[in-house]
Amino acid sequence: MDRFAHISPFIVMDVLDRARKMEGVVHLEVGEPDLEAPPAAIEAFERAVRDGRYRYTPALGLMELREKIAGYYYERYGVAVSPERVAVTPGTSGAFLVVYAMLLDPGDRIALSDPSYPCYRNFAYLLGIEPVFIPVSGDGGYCISPGMLEHHEKVGVLQISNPSNPTGNIYRSDALASLVEYAGRHGIALVSDEIYHGLVYDEKEHSVLEYDDEAIVINGFSKYFCMPGFRVGWMIMPERYIRRAEMVLQNIFIAANTPAQYAALEAFDGDYLSGVRDTFRERRDFLHEALKDVFDVPVRPEGAFYLWADVGRYGLKGVEFSDRLLKEERVAVTPGVDFGKNGTETFVRLAFTSPLEDLRTGVERIRRFVSCLQK
Amino acid sequence: MDRFAHISPFIVMDVLDRARKMEGVVHLEVGEPDLEAPPAAIEAFERAVRDGRYRYTPALGLMELREKIAGYYYERYGVAVSPERVAVTPGTSGAFLVVYAMLLDPGDRIALSDPSYPCYRNFAYLLGIEPVFIPVSGDGGYCISPGMLEHHEKVGVLQISNPSNPTGNIYRSDALASLVEYAGRHGIALVSDEIYHGLVYDEKEHSVLEYDDEAIVINGFSKYFCMPGFRVGWMIMPERYIRRAEMVLQNIFIAANTPAQYAALEAFDGDYLSGVRDTFRERRDFLHEALKDVFDVPVRPEGAFYLWADVGRYGLKGVEFSDRLLKEERVAVTPGVDFGKNGTETFVRLAFTSPLEDLRTGVERIRRFVSCLQK
Repeated sequence: MDRFAHISPFIVMDVLDRARKMEGVVHLEVGEPDLEAPPAAIEAFERAVRDGRYRYTPALGLMELREKIAGYYYERYGVAVSPERVAVTPGTSGAFLVVYAMLLDPGDRIALSDPSYPCYRNFAYLLGIEPVFIPVSGDGGYCISPGMLEHHEKVGVLQISNPSNPTGNIYRSDALASLVEYAGRHGIALVSDEIYHGLVYDEKEHSVLEYDDEAIVINGFSKYFCMPGFRVGWMIMPERYIRRAEMVLQNIFIAANTPAQYAALEAFDGDYLSGVRDTFRERRDFLHEALKDVFDVPVRPEGAFYLWADVGRYGLKGVEFSDRLLKEERVAVTPGVDFGKNGTETFVRLAFTSPLEDLRTGVERIRRFVSCLQK
Repeated sequence: MDRFAHISPFIVMDVLDRARKMEGVVHLEVGEPDLEAPPAAIEAFERAVRDGRYRYTPALGLMELREKIAGYYYERYGVAVSPERVAVTPGTSGAFLVVYAMLLDPGDRIALSDPSYPCYRNFAYLLGIEPVFIPVSGDGGYCISPGMLEHHEKVGVLQISNPSNPTGNIYRSDALASLVEYAGRHGIALVSDEIYHGLVYDEKEHSVLEYDDEAIVINGFSKYFCMPGFRVGWMIMPERYIRRAEMVLQNIFIAANTPAQYAALEAFDGDYLSGVRDTFRERRDFLHEALKDVFDVPVRPEGAFYLWADVGRYGLKGVEFSDRLLKEERVAVTPGVDFGKNGTETFVRLAFTSPLEDLRTGVERIRRFVSCLQK
């Protein structure tokens, strides 16, 4: 097996690199919030550094932080999680590596929606795990449902993301409950990527833990908490996995960045965070309204900060569209093929991670760009 | 294949966890410096956070930092390395994962000395790579020599560590040159872990890059630079690997912690760092002198900050010795079996990562402990 036969570059990072080298670009490509981290988290970071608290932490993370995260699940979702079941990881990226290594041996299978976050499949390839792609579409709100899984045998893990990147859909209560039921009946481990929790705009989101104590949740501080470069995430797992998770973490990472863990301790500032959500909601409303007739947008984003848009009507593939849009109008977007092969070719993903005025400029430029295409 | 059939816990981290829960322990177990990070690095760390520089960096790291590291190789070793060949990683741990994934497919073989740093073999197991253990002993100064490799076929990577953990030996000029020659002749990729460079006490150390432009070097800021919890390392590779390394980094890590990368930029403070080396040399001199007749110490540590000591004369295995020493005398050391199976059973590793007065207390307690064993 050639490990690299299937691993693909994470194209959005390449777009970002190119766009960074240009002047005056409107950045609609990268999935990181532009807003500041909660002030108390920044202060705590500085304080930790100043006090010399930068030795390795335990592999599972600072116990205070694990306790804080456990408490957050009780307050936010009414779910009781013991702190021991929480592991702090270097970003959610670190958590995926640990979880997949822990649950799946080489040759085992993981079910992923197509489209989905590209790192899922690349983690799988890296570990010799076989991804099974479940095509999802706008008709089903881009959700995986039990019926879609029935033809696929020997799936060990079902990975969902809620809200989803790049499609912005969420899994509602009944959708989660039916997946939990199906996974339980078929001995499939359910892994829910909830990194965009908090950034859900029209209703209250649900954690899979409300329905299933056996599920594994992955989340972190890079999106809602606006701390991307701090590289701190977490995972919640059933007790029987803790020791394995610890062993993998000890070996692969030692631990997450220490001052960043102290910063994370102070990041749960409810007032600040609801301001963050409101800002993104305003942008979502603007960008969707401004572009819904320019492109075909199958789903109005319910969560996360992406608009998943079909540019096919202009006779261009997403790669060419984003390439020319960057060169000709200095607007960076991500081609849809980054996220899979199922009808992604004519799509692009637009991230509303820039201020409203930048989004306005971006929209003007996009309108000008497509109007020339139509001539 | 069961990924976990062979992965072992990193015992020293478990010892650390136990020792942290006790009062008044002398810590000789953990491989992290107790000294402060260079003051300019600490300032830069705080400044980066204060200035809001905590977005994701490019996957290969901040270009300024890659340039700085490249320049360091020229100044320190007289070796010309282009900044493009440098990748910044989340600790050296991150670098090992990238390098092994990049160079070896499942089923491929990696040669490791036994004893050696346990994470090497655990990274291999995680990625489905087969470790080939090369027994080394005090007689050969714990170095791998070409003759030891001759019976092993199909080795894709030879991993050395220079200076070595846990044995404290270094690879001298002729030893490196002969390994380079052998590896080149057999198409083996040579990976040199140089994380303890700078902490070499009696002579000038050599990077494998002085002998071989094709070798891969792994190093970082956690030891000599005293920045363990910052989690920043680096790797230097031949040009043809850069794109693969970038793809793995993008997917697995996004990037290393951002403020910590800014801190690393200011860490190359020659005066401060030679003070660090002098402090560790003084401790090495003290601890070796104080214990060389209490235990059998095959090699006086030439680099790194570990004393590798055989406690077999007291009729105890290393695990029992370290267990009782912690309980009865509150001195934490690491059992030798953490590092391999080749004659490690009666060994313990003592890290001189505590101030001299703590080392004195530790030595007193150890003497008392062994004197009771003899009665």
